Amino acid sequence: MTTTTPQPAQSPQPDPQLGAAVKAADRAHVFHSWSAQELIDPLPVAGAEGSYFWDFEGNRYLDFTSGLVFTNIGYQHPKVVAAIQEQAGKLATFAPAFAIEARSEAARLIAERTPGDLDKIFFTNGGADAVEHAVRMARVHTGRPKILSAYRSYHGGTATAINVTGDPRRWASDTGTAGVTHFWAPFLYRSPFHSDSEAQECARALQHLEDTIVFEGASTVAAIVLETIPGTAGIMVPPPGYLAGVREICDRYGIVFVLDEVMAGFGRTGAWFAADHFDVVPDLLTFAKGVNSGYVPLGGVAISGAVAETFAKKPYPGGLTYSGHPLACGAAVATINAMEEEGMIEHTARIGADVIGPALHEMAARHPSVGEVRGLGAFWALELVRDRETREPLVPYNASGAAAAPMGAFAAAAKKNGVWPFVNMNRTHVVPACNISEAEAKEGLAALDDALTTADEHTV
Amino acid sequence: MTTTTPQPAQSPQPDPQLGAAVKAADRAHVFHSWSAQELIDPLPVAGAEGSYFWDFEGNRYLDFTSGLVFTNIGYQHPKVVAAIQEQAGKLATFAPAFAIEARSEAARLIAERTPGDLDKIFFTNGGADAVEHAVRMARVHTGRPKILSAYRSYHGGTATAINVTGDPRRWASDTGTAGVTHFWAPFLYRSPFHSDSEAQECARALQHLEDTIVFEGASTVAAIVLETIPGTAGIMVPPPGYLAGVREICDRYGIVFVLDEVMAGFGRTGAWFAADHFDVVPDLLTFAKGVNSGYVPLGGVAISGAVAETFAKKPYPGGLTYSGHPLACGAAVATINAMEEEGMIEHTARIGADVIGPALHEMAARHPSVGEVRGLGAFWALELVRDRETREPLVPYNASGAAAAPMGAFAAAAKKNGVWPFVNMNRTHVVPACNISEAEAKEGLAALDDALTTADEHTV
Repeated sequence: MTTTTPQPAQSPQPDPQLGAAVKAADRAHVFHSWSAQELIDPLPVAGAEGSYFWDFEGNRYLDFTSGLVFTNIGYQHPKVVAAIQEQAGKLATFAPAFAIEARSEAARLIAERTPGDLDKIFFTNGGADAVEHAVRMARVHTGRPKILSAYRSYHGGTATAINVTGDPRRWASDTGTAGVTHFWAPFLYRSPFHSDSEAQECARALQHLEDTIVFEGASTVAAIVLETIPGTAGIMVPPPGYLAGVREICDRYGIVFVLDEVMAGFGRTGAWFAADHFDVVPDLLTFAKGVNSGYVPLGGVAISGAVAETFAKKPYPGGLTYSGHPLACGAAVATINAMEEEGMIEHTARIGADVIGPALHEMAARHPSVGEVRGLGAFWALELVRDRETREPLVPYNASGAAAAPMGAFAAAAKKNGVWPFVNMNRTHVVPACNISEAEAKEGLAALDDALTTADEHTV
Repeated sequence: MTTTTPQPAQSPQPDPQLGAAVKAADRAHVFHSWSAQELIDPLPVAGAEGSYFWDFEGNRYLDFTSGLVFTNIGYQHPKVVAAIQEQAGKLATFAPAFAIEARSEAARLIAERTPGDLDKIFFTNGGADAVEHAVRMARVHTGRPKILSAYRSYHGGTATAINVTGDPRRWASDTGTAGVTHFWAPFLYRSPFHSDSEAQECARALQHLEDTIVFEGASTVAAIVLETIPGTAGIMVPPPGYLAGVREICDRYGIVFVLDEVMAGFGRTGAWFAADHFDVVPDLLTFAKGVNSGYVPLGGVAISGAVAETFAKKPYPGGLTYSGHPLACGAAVATINAMEEEGMIEHTARIGADVIGPALHEMAARHPSVGEVRGLGAFWALELVRDRETREPLVPYNASGAAAAPMGAFAAAAKKNGVWPFVNMNRTHVVPACNISEAEAKEGLAALDDALTTADEHTV
């Protein structure tokens, strides 16, 4: 593998003194997400451009995380920066009850790209409240109380969104009264259904879902909420036919089908929406992150004609102060236009199929710690294992502290090689900017390749 | 009353054709908050500056709503616009796990202004998720399930926030299983306790709260959540001693005291926080809106030392992608500094005490439709009534359609006079930008004065 090291246009300007001040104020006053506040050590970051960021010491990192998988167009894209500056100078903010040019245009551009008749856009501040509102729309539309969602999923941090979530971040907030029932989605590598082929996994997963609906009582189920391709939970691309099968089940039982594309949407998979790969149209589609690469907080729900009709003459019982925020919508307009103009969707599909995928598969063949490679576009997971035969994970589910040390050592090795890796439980995800160049991708993959030797040391 | 009409620096440029296009795209693709989509008629807005906004037809309005009570520094404040443009060019976005200059500085500036030891800042995207996280912190900190909150309150639109809310917007989302118990807060004009003085109302409200806690079981109550001064619910300034009494009750029973200052905070009342007027320090304080005048979506929770200590070695089970968003934090830094430099807090206190308050009381004396005037700073409510003796509201609680027509007629009259009024149920709130000039305030008050004659026609 070639190791090229392209320079960012703006080189790091070391300023350790400022870095220390930023760090000191952070430690004194910033309370961080999902963290034990005294056990974290946040790196002060000075700047970022494209696929890179740098600290105040002059260290530069290739970002294989896209932040939290949201900077799909990379950092500081000049067209989007300029659009934010222009919108700020024109009309930074305005209340949601009015018609605003940037709001109207963002809604139009999104509606034109969402599948099927998802033509009405309800804007939120991010992914969590998008899921909150999708669930509420489904409950009011159907008059039913329950939500079905998958284990191995993440849908956001607010009360409903975290209860729909199927990972350990839910536990502290789950009182068992949120009206959410979790089922098992297909995942052949760790099949909940003891399948030995994708086709069998698909059929058994659909049977399991329908059985669950029948025993929960279809008349009590408002919605099925799924990530089109689960993200943080492991980038498990569903087998052919699964999502179409869920669509058919939803139609049969009058259940609202919600696809969460907060992470998978807006180019991440080499398509505008991951649903495009499966030729399936949900009733509601949630988005955030990639819609404007997180340059300004924005999320939303794309709404089908049938659900919108429910709220034509009857008020929708939900809202928020910053719904359709002009600055956020202006950034979305520029992001979508830049992605279109620069052929980013096609680029992402190609770099996934021709560069990242082949390289990861080739690395997996050489590293005993790699149990499986999954993904497409700029959306890949390596499942790391102690034992390829038993598929025992490199670290236990939800491990922390010493039990998680092998993954910590892998991450440290990657950082030492100049790549900032995405690590979750026993997996590393390769989720760079969707417009990462081939040279940058190869540079990062070579660094991961090297870091995997650290993981190999923990195999049996 | 003098009616001056200061001109905004940038005059409206009528462009009806663009306005029609903006409106058409809105109607085709934007799904609006809290609305029956086919029964609304959103005004296309072309621009805004200071206390004014204008449409595409050349109509200009003095904004007596501050959007949804969030543009505390008015529209397009040049220092904040410039700061957003600068931060966008430097580092628009970055993930929450890092130390970032704008994030550190915003946290420091906020922590320096919050009362007592509320020195750790958890950033969210807005007020609703601030309340979500404050409630979660309280539940984990105490290990108790229940939240006590007041009728006549609004705390946000997501699942927990809307269940904490005490107005009709909760009803469609309340399944009775959210662990929230509502109690009655003091409101002498419509006393739930049949009081005839502020002192009696205060004593009885505190007794009622303590009785409720005793019968709910203090060991089951995690938090009491109150707006320091309830906002949308009617700007009921609590009687002297009430909040101090709640603080004492919380201390006695080991309950977390949460003050929601999403609307009342950051200058609205002529103080940095409304709690400053009552010399009370909560355990958690939620904010949003005024922190950066909504120029970029931002909210948060200010956390006491005791609550922060709970999450020193144990992870806080919550988070979000855009926590401490650099662009939003950069706007907050500029907003807080501008408010400081321009003496906005003092200005707001003075204009409330010397201009708005006296004018509203004088108007109330002349208009039989005004039942009560309440407020301070740039935070005032007129309670409109059919009958001053019985205090029957001008329109019934939660009225819509024909039943709400008298308030609709009042609003239409105000708009015709060039003022965009805040209307909720039987009230109009005078909530302009906190830096509104005396001349602008007088212009708007004269317009309201005239519009109140429309309301007077509906009195008995």
